[in-house]
Amino acid sequence: MAELKQLTSRATNYSQWYNELVVKADLAEQSAVRGCMVIKPYGYTIWEKMQHELDRMFKETGHQNAYFPLLIPKSFLCREAEHVEGFAKECAVVTHYRLKNDPDGSGVIVDPDAKLEEELIIRPTSETIIWNTYKNWIQSYRDLPILINQWANVMRWEMRTRLFLRTAEFLWQEGHTAHATEQEALEEAQRMLNVYADFAENFMAIPVVKGVKSPNERFAGAVETFCIEALMQDGKALQAGTSHFLGQNFAKAFDVQYVDKDNKLQYVWATSWGVSTRLMGALIMTHSDDNGLVLPPNLAPIQVVMVPIYKNDEQRTAVVAKFEELAAKLRKAGLSVNIDNNDAKKPGWKFAEYELKGVPVRLAMGARDLENGTIEVFRRDTLTKETMPIEGVEQHVVELMDAIQKNIYQKAYDFRKSVTREVNSYDEFKVEIEKGGFLLCHWDGTPETEEKIKNETKATIRCIPFDGDKTPGTCMVTGKPSKQRVIFARSY
Amino acid sequence: MAELKQLTSRATNYSQWYNELVVKADLAEQSAVRGCMVIKPYGYTIWEKMQHELDRMFKETGHQNAYFPLLIPKSFLCREAEHVEGFAKECAVVTHYRLKNDPDGSGVIVDPDAKLEEELIIRPTSETIIWNTYKNWIQSYRDLPILINQWANVMRWEMRTRLFLRTAEFLWQEGHTAHATEQEALEEAQRMLNVYADFAENFMAIPVVKGVKSPNERFAGAVETFCIEALMQDGKALQAGTSHFLGQNFAKAFDVQYVDKDNKLQYVWATSWGVSTRLMGALIMTHSDDNGLVLPPNLAPIQVVMVPIYKNDEQRTAVVAKFEELAAKLRKAGLSVNIDNNDAKKPGWKFAEYELKGVPVRLAMGARDLENGTIEVFRRDTLTKETMPIEGVEQHVVELMDAIQKNIYQKAYDFRKSVTREVNSYDEFKVEIEKGGFLLCHWDGTPETEEKIKNETKATIRCIPFDGDKTPGTCMVTGKPSKQRVIFARSY
Repeated sequence: MAELKQLTSRATNYSQWYNELVVKADLAEQSAVRGCMVIKPYGYTIWEKMQHELDRMFKETGHQNAYFPLLIPKSFLCREAEHVEGFAKECAVVTHYRLKNDPDGSGVIVDPDAKLEEELIIRPTSETIIWNTYKNWIQSYRDLPILINQWANVMRWEMRTRLFLRTAEFLWQEGHTAHATEQEALEEAQRMLNVYADFAENFMAIPVVKGVKSPNERFAGAVETFCIEALMQDGKALQAGTSHFLGQNFAKAFDVQYVDKDNKLQYVWATSWGVSTRLMGALIMTHSDDNGLVLPPNLAPIQVVMVPIYKNDEQRTAVVAKFEELAAKLRKAGLSVNIDNNDAKKPGWKFAEYELKGVPVRLAMGARDLENGTIEVFRRDTLTKETMPIEGVEQHVVELMDAIQKNIYQKAYDFRKSVTREVNSYDEFKVEIEKGGFLLCHWDGTPETEEKIKNETKATIRCIPFDGDKTPGTCMVTGKPSKQRVIFARSY
Repeated sequence: MAELKQLTSRATNYSQWYNELVVKADLAEQSAVRGCMVIKPYGYTIWEKMQHELDRMFKETGHQNAYFPLLIPKSFLCREAEHVEGFAKECAVVTHYRLKNDPDGSGVIVDPDAKLEEELIIRPTSETIIWNTYKNWIQSYRDLPILINQWANVMRWEMRTRLFLRTAEFLWQEGHTAHATEQEALEEAQRMLNVYADFAENFMAIPVVKGVKSPNERFAGAVETFCIEALMQDGKALQAGTSHFLGQNFAKAFDVQYVDKDNKLQYVWATSWGVSTRLMGALIMTHSDDNGLVLPPNLAPIQVVMVPIYKNDEQRTAVVAKFEELAAKLRKAGLSVNIDNNDAKKPGWKFAEYELKGVPVRLAMGARDLENGTIEVFRRDTLTKETMPIEGVEQHVVELMDAIQKNIYQKAYDFRKSVTREVNSYDEFKVEIEKGGFLLCHWDGTPETEEKIKNETKATIRCIPFDGDKTPGTCMVTGKPSKQRVIFARSY
């Protein structure tokens, strides 16, 4: 059975490794509906843990959850000129509201009499329906700010889909806030970017670069898009979250004005921000190896698994009893523990299975261990094992959670650092981009140059980073002045 | 301002009272999309609390969450003959996957070239897509049981909609389980019915009758539908949750078989069970009064509100400081507390507002109270207030939570009891049904008699109750034998 789960190695075919891992580790699978996935219980549990932490962080920063309709009238999408260009094209369109029995007796057909007067679009994002609602909620400065988040499913009719990374339907949260001033909205957009970075680094153990998108990569309808960019093990970038300063664009499109303290009418300032099940893809690709998933302890559904080794029922009972004792202590310390007592599977099969599933720590114990008072402790991140005294092992395991969390972050950080480099000429760029990683380059700030680079090399500007070197220079393509280096990479 | 929030009384127009209350208490409102609601933050917070408790109960009974696609291929709905009759008619149909710019330059139109080969239906319920998935998950008895729940939005194109009670889109959870034996599936369906009853009674403070539906009221595709039925203050019944024993219907429709221990192929047994945002309607209508919402402490977003009364800043500071001290103690005891320190609103306005919002306990304190060491404690459920020593008030408030939770349950229980009565003739039935309540009547067990009663009186069989009198009798309409009394009522 262990053989069946064997993964293609990353070196052989990274893309195939990813696709196999998602399915074999029971995270998700393709459904019967093109581009839509089934998120399986093990994958969904990780997503729930992400939701739980993010939701707590949103509430701690003053946000409340609400729920807005799934369907958006077609005309709403057209109100904001750039927004419709970005979102109204590849989307699921509801045109009818009834089926009827097929007169020829086989199944059902769409009832032509039940055609909607105006088509409805399954939300690709909810700015339009939400700002149409906010119009009725906002009259005075006393009604501001509005700080709302929504957990929802959205749909974008992608042509090429991959589990978690790009699916027609995906799950996400979208924050939509309304403010009296430009300054307040800008601060909100940056605050939420910081929340995302904090979450990525401290829970997902993924180092991210915070920055601002170039105009070509900006959200359709935004004035500025802030983002966190992560780097995957194959050297490709992945946008892990975005926070948009929307200016007054949606307020103007939906005529949302408020009376300020001086009794003057003003348009409202807006932000929106979101992360999605795409984060699952980032999590998988950042840490996992050829044996399977590597999960950060802060998000692992099972943090410790215990595998008893025995030759007979008597040994089994004794070892499991000792495990129960240890598990009680670990659970008291807040860890999630699973004792795999299944007699139908061999220890070797279980070892491979929990490695595949990314359980951070595995404990194994046999009759001899019991005699000697020892236990085997296996770390998923380093694939190392150590035999140590049972006495006091719980403290060691608790500390390992923290150690593993830090180690996988550091490993990802070191990897990113090792493939982040300055490139100064376009010729060099064309060679270097093939090797992957983040390339720090001077760019003249024009969409035309960015477009040319993209067409010729498939690389885009991932962001103009907030931190780091701000020395001006000259564009590697045009030789025109550049304010600072920006990050180029190929991306997911 | 307080006047603006004045509700129509229940006696004047119960239906209008409900509609106004939902909007004025900031629970939900109509959206721009016909039949779809916006759930506002205050309403959504109550729903989140419901979700939190239910999710915990599902997990404690061994279930895991997962996520299945929003869209269902039209042909899937037709696989189960009764299911398609019940669900495939009034539903949202996706026919296209792209919009394009209108050649005449105004907005976007549906791109006729982007017509789907097979139409997709927005899920009205997910049995079909889930059983199509389970087919690949189940080979052997070792793969069973599968115990999965999904939190999701669903859509049924209802013609007449009311906030929470009947909306085109609503939020719900749907459990879908697969079992090796009939007995196990039946037990599961009953277990989840008990979970629902436990939740309704202990968290929502709503007494419910557990029973089984008559064939006319059964879920389309089920062998048996178990339900919990609640009674609203206007004497109408509301189905608060259903749990279905699906037999092998969906396993046969989607060809889901497993190899049993004797190496024989068997069809899998199934259940499904769900509750929805409709529960919000039940919660509102069971307890609330002409002053607004009455919320059970176990689900109230704010359990205690503190309103300072003062004539100057000095008094305000002193009172608020005392409140802060008390709030810290109450929060430590696990209560959610809000100190309304807003200087722009008068205490009278705040009193009306928190009554409208159903906050279980309100504490008010002024300068004189501070001198005397007293505080005013107001109970939302009884609308009574009491001045008592501040010393030790936190213990009293903690106990009030329990007292209020029990009192509103008892009040609803007593009301239901007072309008539940035996009716023995159809003539009497026609008179009594106009008065509302649960009517316990003998029925001959045929769909025809039930249909006749429904057509003539608008009453349906809410359930054949599990508990209570099982004495046989004769049908009030046909005089044929009846096994036991069943519950008739008009319903939401």
